[in-house]
This record gives sequence, C-alpha cells and structure tokens, in this order.
Amino acid sequence: MQKIIAEYLGHELPRINAFLKDETDKLDSSVRPPIQHVLAAGGKRLRPLLTLLAARALGAKNDAALPLACSLEFLHSATLLHDDILDEADLRRGRQSAHIIYGRSETILAGDVLLALANRLVAGYGEPRLTDILSEAIMRTATGEVKEIANVRNTELSNEDYLDIITGKTAYLFQAACECGAIIAGCPKEVEDAAHNYGLYLGIAFQLVDDALDYVSPSDVSGKPSGGDLREGKLTLPLIGYFAQLEPARREELEDKFRQNLLSEKETADILHEITALNLPQQTREAARSYVDQAREALKKFPDTPEREVLDSILDFVLSREK
Amino acid sequence: MQKIIAEYLGHELPRINAFLKDETDKLDSSVRPPIQHVLAAGGKRLRPLLTLLAARALGAKNDAALPLACSLEFLHSATLLHDDILDEADLRRGRQSAHIIYGRSETILAGDVLLALANRLVAGYGEPRLTDILSEAIMRTATGEVKEIANVRNTELSNEDYLDIITGKTAYLFQAACECGAIIAGCPKEVEDAAHNYGLYLGIAFQLVDDALDYVSPSDVSGKPSGGDLREGKLTLPLIGYFAQLEPARREELEDKFRQNLLSEKETADILHEITALNLPQQTREAARSYVDQAREALKKFPDTPEREVLDSILDFVLSREK
Repeated sequence: MQKIIAEYLGHELPRINAFLKDETDKLDSSVRPPIQHVLAAGGKRLRPLLTLLAARALGAKNDAALPLACSLEFLHSATLLHDDILDEADLRRGRQSAHIIYGRSETILAGDVLLALANRLVAGYGEPRLTDILSEAIMRTATGEVKEIANVRNTELSNEDYLDIITGKTAYLFQAACECGAIIAGCPKEVEDAAHNYGLYLGIAFQLVDDALDYVSPSDVSGKPSGGDLREGKLTLPLIGYFAQLEPARREELEDKFRQNLLSEKETADILHEITALNLPQQTREAARSYVDQAREALKKFPDTPEREVLDSILDFVLSREK
Repeated sequence: MQKIIAEYLGHELPRINAFLKDETDKLDSSVRPPIQHVLAAGGKRLRPLLTLLAARALGAKNDAALPLACSLEFLHSATLLHDDILDEADLRRGRQSAHIIYGRSETILAGDVLLALANRLVAGYGEPRLTDILSEAIMRTATGEVKEIANVRNTELSNEDYLDIITGKTAYLFQAACECGAIIAGCPKEVEDAAHNYGLYLGIAFQLVDDALDYVSPSDVSGKPSGGDLREGKLTLPLIGYFAQLEPARREELEDKFRQNLLSEKETADILHEITALNLPQQTREAARSYVDQAREALKKFPDTPEREVLDSILDFVLSREK
C-alpha cells in the first residue's frame, strides 16, 4: 500500500474501528456475535475511508463525517453477511463464514440489524438526501447481485452486461460513500458530482481488479480459493475473454460443459492455466486502468488538499493491489 | 371483520395496493418476482392501515401518509421474505414461500431491496425522526427474531422472556407504524406518545392472538399447519402454560423430550388436544385482552374522529380474529 495511504489509515483506522466497536457494543448481545465476527475479519475499511477523505477534502470539519463513514462500513458488512449465505461460502477473507459458525438465520438477521443501524446513524445527520442515496445504493447493490446470480453459467453474457452487474454489486456503494462525504461537506453541486464520479469509476476499477485477482491470487493471499469464479460459474472479464478467443468448435464444446457445470478438474486447471498464459487477468487490470483514469479526471475538480492526494493514491493502490 | 373497518379498508385498500404496485413496478425486473409474490399473497395490510389511520386521526391531510404507510408494508414484506428462509417454511399464507419458487439468494436480496425501498420512501418526507424510528423498529424486529431462535426448545423460557420476544419481533413495527403516522400529522408530544402506546399494545395483543390461533386454527383457515409452533419447538404462552400445569414427573419427561425434539406424533397430537381441552388458547386471548385494554386507554388521548373509531374497532378485531 502506498505510504501516503498507510499514514492516513494509521491515523484514521483506530478511530473508525473504535466507532464501529462502540456502536456494535450497544446492540443486543443476542445479535452481536456474527456482526463482531464480520467486522473483526478486518477488510480494508476502504468505504469509510473514502467518505472521510471526500468529506475532509471538500471542507467538512474533522470528525463530522465519522458516523456517516462508519455507516458505510456497516452497510458493506451487512452485504457481506448476506453474501456469505448466497455464495454458500465457507470462507470469508480466509476465515470461516459467519453463517457456518452462528447459523444461517442468525446471520441473515444480523445483516438486517446492520442495515438498520447504518440507516439510523445516517438519519442522525438530519439530511434526507444521505438516506436517499444510501438506500438507492443498497437497492442497486442487491439488484446487481441478483443479476449476477441470474447470469451464472450464462455464456451469452456480454461485456456490457458484465459491467452493469459489477457497477451494481460494487461500484454504487463506493459512489455513495464519496457522494455522501461531499454532501455533508456542503460543497457546490459540480464538486458533489465529481465525488460521485470518482467513487463510481473507482468502484468499477476495484471490482475489475478483484475479478482479475480471482485468477491469479493463491488462496493464502486472497483468502479465497484460486479460480473460484470459474468453479462457481461466474463469468467475469478474464473468462469472457478466454471463451472469445477460442476457435469456434472448441469454444462451443467448453462453453457447453461450463453451462452444464460438467468441466472436469483437469479441464478447469487447464483453463485457469491458459487464462494466465494469455495474460487475461492483466488485460482486465488494463480495463480497470481506463476507469481509474476517469476517476482521476473527476478528482481534478477537488480543491488541492492533502486528502485529495490520498484519494489520488488510492486510485494507484486499487489498480496495483495484489489481494 | 367489523363493518366499520371493512368500509374503511374498502376505500383505502385499492389505494394502498396501487401505490405498492407502482413502486414495485419501478424496480428492476430481476428483483421483482419474489416481491410481487409476497405482496400478492395479500395479508391484512394492517400496518399501512394503522399509519393512515393514526395520521388522519391526528390531523394529517388526506394522502400525506400514503407513501409512509406503504413503506411499513414494504418493511413488513421484507421481514416475511427473510422469515420464510429462517423458518425453512414451505408455505406462507397457504401459498408456496418465495424462496421455494425463486431461490434462497434471490429472496434474501429481494428482502434487502424492500428494506432499502422503504427507507427511500421515508427519506422523501425530509423528517429524519421517521427514519430513526423505522430503523430502530427493524433492529428490534430482527433482534426479537434472533432471541426467538436462540430460545427454540428452551423450556426455561419465562413469560417475561416470551413477552420480550414477541414485543421485539412483532409489536415494535406496529408501534412504529402508529408513531410515524402521528409524527407526520404534527401533533403534540403527548398524543405522539399515545399513538406509540396504542401501536405497541396492539402489536403485543396481535402476536398473543397469533400464538393462540396456532393451536386452534385448522390449516385451511390460517394457511399454516396446526400446532406448528409446538412442532418447531417454539415456546409460546399456550405451551408454557401447558408445561406449567403438569405434575412434576410428567412435566420433566415431556419437557425433556420436547427439548430434544423426541416427541412422537402421538404425543404431539395428545399435547395439542390437551392444550385445547385446558382452554389455554382462550387464556392466551385473555392475556391479549389486557393489552387491548391498555391500547384503548391510550386511544382516549386521540381527538374524537371517525378514524379513532376505526382504530378502536381494530382492537376488537385483533382480539376476536379467527385467522
């Protein structure tokens, strides 16, 4: 991670984590365990950091954005709790998923509690636009996930459909994080829009890199088994590109097996190997770069502050991250 | 149903349903089916009706409360979608559950979309207290459900614990429905509190009667198999009362089997029969009556309007309903 981000995180992470802990401690003890579990798994706290940075870069006073920022982490954690059940994932960031330890029902409900807690924190600002934007983001996130599920093993999925899905399931929450930060800073509409665009393009780039990493990261780095998307039938850019470059008969054969979930372990390993050999994960990163460029363009509308520099470094970090 | 309620519903139900349909139609088509399914199942639309009635009884203009009222139905429907998964219920109001038809993941996410849609509707009022109260209600509803699950087959459950659970899982949303209606009417704090109390006590009574009905309603009336709570290991007032009146050795034996889910079909049928013979469902209704009385007391703080009369009739309806 870039030094400038690490330094900023060094200041902010303890305060973010303390706030998350305080709010979690106030919850009824019966719903706390899965919530503590998902928060303790760590993660990058990228969304709350973005809210803090956008708010301060655009003139918000020191701690004004902290509850708002943390509400973004609660929303994100809620989606993780629900996702774990959707994916039937046994691992999350290398640790056992909450629903394996605490039960499926408890985990769904803990997610609901987090969604509501986030809303309550946001309501505290007395600015209905924040609730509006975050509600919209949650709706779009869930809709993106439904579309992703609906398109599992759908080899007809186009690049555009794929982009629509990842924008939904990932980018809108990044967008909301940045836009809400701008709103409580009280900046001009044009700058709010710039924050919105910065978050949106950063979010798309983030997910593209995530999808690239799925094909390159060994399990001990990413916390997920390598090639998980291929095994789960998720079409992402590397796999779409792989199918597209096959000669027609071979393509038809493999797509057919993929659709029916009939690829052997050997075929799966071969595809994973070829995707790497063809440099398709790297090409996916290149696609991410074009979104990072657009995010950087949006950032030019921000006044020149130390926070803008951190936001700029985050673009490089998201593009180059290895896990 | 009392004539006065039926008349009011006759006016309001088409408008509530039209609003619910309009908002649902605006959602992405990929998330719509489970939502349309749960809304089409009907239900009493009791929560939105309460919001409309409280708002109008306390001076809100005609349609001011409609989006707020419908957000209550969306919140309730979200909890139904998530509950269906929790219960592993195959039937809901006599129809197949959404998750059986549309899949578990799609149903969880559709619930999340509804939670967010409700929040967005409420944010439209520009009154953060509404978001605050509804977020709190969702947190308490989910917490109550977690506690209920944690206490399945717990024969130590006291009457107080049971009341705490049903207040959480059911009554807070009724309370929020009424309190929010009062808030947008802009009435004095004392009357807001009365609306709050009316909803709370009505909600407790509603769930008590629900728990009584579980032991008396044949499946074709309630849409659920009779004695479902006993079979699922849920301790409610009739069963708590049943165990309490057994002589110690017999009590220990049956509680032990119940805890371990070892009751035979014959023993289950016998218990169901004895619970009816001992009039325990009727006693549970009597317990509901004391809460209805408290709700009626709160209602005296409302000005004398036709809506107050309907709210009063709803108390009788909730107490006497057979399904």
